[in-house]
Amino acid sequence: MYTIKEFQTIIEKELCAQDFGKQPIGLYEPIEYVLSIGGKRIRPVLCLAACYLFTDEIDQAIRPALGFEIFHNFTLLHDDIMDRADVRRNKPTVHKKWDDNTAILSGDAMMIKAYQYLTDLPENRLKRVIDLFSSTALEVCEGQQYDMQFENQNHVAVEDYMQMIKLKTAVLLAACLKVGAIIGGASEEQASLLYDFGINIGLGFQLQDDYLDSFGDEKSFGKAIGGDILCNKKTFLLINAQSLVEGSQREILEYWIDAKEFDPTEKINAVKDIFLKVGVAELAKEKMNSYFQLAMNSLNKVEGKPEMKKELESFALKLIERIR
Amino acid sequence: MYTIKEFQTIIEKELCAQDFGKQPIGLYEPIEYVLSIGGKRIRPVLCLAACYLFTDEIDQAIRPALGFEIFHNFTLLHDDIMDRADVRRNKPTVHKKWDDNTAILSGDAMMIKAYQYLTDLPENRLKRVIDLFSSTALEVCEGQQYDMQFENQNHVAVEDYMQMIKLKTAVLLAACLKVGAIIGGASEEQASLLYDFGINIGLGFQLQDDYLDSFGDEKSFGKAIGGDILCNKKTFLLINAQSLVEGSQREILEYWIDAKEFDPTEKINAVKDIFLKVGVAELAKEKMNSYFQLAMNSLNKVEGKPEMKKELESFALKLIERIR
Repeated sequence: MYTIKEFQTIIEKELCAQDFGKQPIGLYEPIEYVLSIGGKRIRPVLCLAACYLFTDEIDQAIRPALGFEIFHNFTLLHDDIMDRADVRRNKPTVHKKWDDNTAILSGDAMMIKAYQYLTDLPENRLKRVIDLFSSTALEVCEGQQYDMQFENQNHVAVEDYMQMIKLKTAVLLAACLKVGAIIGGASEEQASLLYDFGINIGLGFQLQDDYLDSFGDEKSFGKAIGGDILCNKKTFLLINAQSLVEGSQREILEYWIDAKEFDPTEKINAVKDIFLKVGVAELAKEKMNSYFQLAMNSLNKVEGKPEMKKELESFALKLIERIR
Repeated sequence: MYTIKEFQTIIEKELCAQDFGKQPIGLYEPIEYVLSIGGKRIRPVLCLAACYLFTDEIDQAIRPALGFEIFHNFTLLHDDIMDRADVRRNKPTVHKKWDDNTAILSGDAMMIKAYQYLTDLPENRLKRVIDLFSSTALEVCEGQQYDMQFENQNHVAVEDYMQMIKLKTAVLLAACLKVGAIIGGASEEQASLLYDFGINIGLGFQLQDDYLDSFGDEKSFGKAIGGDILCNKKTFLLINAQSLVEGSQREILEYWIDAKEFDPTEKINAVKDIFLKVGVAELAKEKMNSYFQLAMNSLNKVEGKPEMKKELESFALKLIERIR
């Protein structure tokens, strides 16, 4: 009987053992770097867990699971160039440690590596897995494009925001689970239930990320609190606040959004105060819970090993609550 | 009986008919743009030709052939960001017409699209095709990395240069041919002969590109003559000139390489003069011919339709000679 914790250990060990390439060092060193920095390895763990629900033979899912982790890190690498983010997981990002060109090209190589790992499968599973992976990867690009577009829009509809985070975050978690299930021999219907589970966990996870940026603990969040507020990022909190805020509070919010020169701490505290008063902090928590419930409804219909279903439930809960 | 010319028409028509995606427009518009600008469609044409050598059923190779064209244009898109190239085929490049972020992300989406087209195949061919495509794509990235590294090196060995152009250019042409042959039902041995044909055509093609940058005709070459000379690009001509030049000619070459301020036309003419005097212009032509001969040796061993072999021979000759 495997646990999620054991899957994490397996993934970390396997990742360490991989040889992604040696020469030219300028191409492969950044790949080693970015994959060695850590992270929670959520995606490959979900892939192994979904496979294990339906079979004991999890070895066949290990390389595809690693493929998802490589792909995810590729997206971080390129997103960090586009967002000009200098720090990720308390370390300099690739474009900062090396340069933009290195980050572009090593990212490209990582995406190809991701395909190599994902497609290391018997022929009878290959077509379904690769089709799902490609369409998911494209959706992730669409999500990033919407995310960048929203930065230049004054107002974003809540539905558009939810669609964006579904594309940018949720579909990849869902695909990891579905691919794991397919490799484990699950029926299309069972694999799709896990896909739905992943979508809702993903949506809840992203709302939590928005929430923690304002109300989290700096140390466990891994980045400075209030970063989204300072750059007027259209998060679930800000978008809802903009549509709900009234009277003098609206004036205050608009003042801070338009302010060109300000004391960062003052702006963060003022905007957080509005988030609390308007009730969007509470709204975000309610939404998270409802997505968690939807996720559980799908998981309950899955027929696999009950102990692993239990494990997935508490893993999902931890993800959304970020208990450390 | 198909001709290469007909394959070009088929590819152009099919490319026009594709719907690469609509929303978000900021992601998909640059893809339509870059694929509509033209180019010689060499890669998909080689893929169809190789398939047709072994079977009349070329329809099954059309989408994989388009996948190669999409992949090739993805590499141009990202390379143009890295090289800060503002013009390609007499049109502004994507990062110039839009911006760097658009070019990075649309490029990423193109690579995924390339995989989608490449893998639109029956399961019994899928594994061989995708493995060859992924390893080739990775080699192309390695080639680009070496190319960028060489820019910062004062001296590059001729063998290292040849290895770089093999990775950056030749392996993709070779893979197009081999994939076409695989789809057409060729044996591994036959498909590999076409791969070797492609490698040697690719090496000759790149040497021709180096040659034309100095000695070509601006209009048919599609970009300004002497661009490589002005930025001291380590081409086959410069690398060989650096190792062969002696006496006062060496001093003159070093003067122009080190010169910070100069009249462009004067530098181009002076360096071209050295290329001619040292004999590297002639050397490049000899090398091209010997790669062409090697290519023909492989093609002669191929068993497919003799008329199509003849077509491939004259296509290769045109490619290397760039007769228009």
